[in-house]
Amino acid sequence: MNNPVKFAVVLSGCGVFDGAEIHEATLTLYAILKNNAVYDIFAPDISQHHVVNHLTGQEMKETRNVMIESARIARGKISPLSEFSAEEYDALIFPGGFGVAKNLSDFAFKGNNCTVNEEAANAISAMVKLNKPVGALCISPVILAKVLGDIEVTIGSDEGTAQALEEMGAKHENTTHEEIVVDNRYKIVTTPCYMLDANIVQIANGTENVIKEMLKLI
Amino acid sequence: MNNPVKFAVVLSGCGVFDGAEIHEATLTLYAILKNNAVYDIFAPDISQHHVVNHLTGQEMKETRNVMIESARIARGKISPLSEFSAEEYDALIFPGGFGVAKNLSDFAFKGNNCTVNEEAANAISAMVKLNKPVGALCISPVILAKVLGDIEVTIGSDEGTAQALEEMGAKHENTTHEEIVVDNRYKIVTTPCYMLDANIVQIANGTENVIKEMLKLI
Repeated sequence: MNNPVKFAVVLSGCGVFDGAEIHEATLTLYAILKNNAVYDIFAPDISQHHVVNHLTGQEMKETRNVMIESARIARGKISPLSEFSAEEYDALIFPGGFGVAKNLSDFAFKGNNCTVNEEAANAISAMVKLNKPVGALCISPVILAKVLGDIEVTIGSDEGTAQALEEMGAKHENTTHEEIVVDNRYKIVTTPCYMLDANIVQIANGTENVIKEMLKLI
Repeated sequence: MNNPVKFAVVLSGCGVFDGAEIHEATLTLYAILKNNAVYDIFAPDISQHHVVNHLTGQEMKETRNVMIESARIARGKISPLSEFSAEEYDALIFPGGFGVAKNLSDFAFKGNNCTVNEEAANAISAMVKLNKPVGALCISPVILAKVLGDIEVTIGSDEGTAQALEEMGAKHENTTHEEIVVDNRYKIVTTPCYMLDANIVQIANGTENVIKEMLKLI
């Protein structure tokens, strides 16, 4: 019996406005297992940029930790991103949510002049160096573009984000629901998910399309 | 064109150990939409019983609100459970998680002597009175049993919980992954989900089996 393909899933908190988008994260785990692969979950052990009341959209006077909150999605089974080793995994994927642009980077505040969390940047570089596929949903392609530069990606059709991607050296392709863009040179697979006004079935299908394409690239 | 079937989904926070189980909640929304129905999300506007660090399992010295945290799963689109009206919905469903036993009731602490949150109890009673189906995943059947008494349900095969259900007047049937129990008299549909040592594909399938059965009962 062959060993199943092993994905590493990187989360950025728990909740679309200050962390990982919960539907994208959950449906990523589901798509991986449904397609006969397995996963481990990672997150950086750092403070969230801030905490947002998801009912009102207002900032709350609280502090929360990215890994501890991500553990809610992981049901406690999560490791610090510092322990990630590219040698141990066949594929790496980033679900979306503002956590990618606020915790895994400061893209939400600095756009193309952003800095990417060092552990996340190292994980991306290490996988690419080993010629292993990296997937990115929703806003996550921005951190791949910042780290890798001249990649082909999609975040849907948002002009401002597409322009920032081009300024970081990437080529952006407009897409709609469930469509994916594959960069065969870097083995990067991306899809817009909630960067479009999507429903949860479109998220499930787009995410599964990414996972299936990544499995082909291994 | 017929109006789609409308589900009300009741959440109890955001995270398995102190709120709604995130995979069960997300996959409930997915199963509803995938089967051509629609949903609105509700949660009581009350404080959580407590906050649990999902990495360590230890209690945290914080207070969080059940509706505000549930809004993370709902992406902000959520209403207070006090505004739920049985007349406006075709079906009602409770995903699981300790939030059901700690926030929607005190079953985690008092077992069969528990009290059910009044808004949740009213929602259940009102749907049954109108002969509309009610679904319950994981530990959620305990609140239906406390409110309704002599119903047929499953929470999997946990003996302690099954005994508490029987003490509340319910009939418990042992089941394994993805199996459902249907009480045709009360139109109650239940499945064990993470009350068993399950994986996320089993959660998706069990949840969808519940939704499909509920749609048949409408």
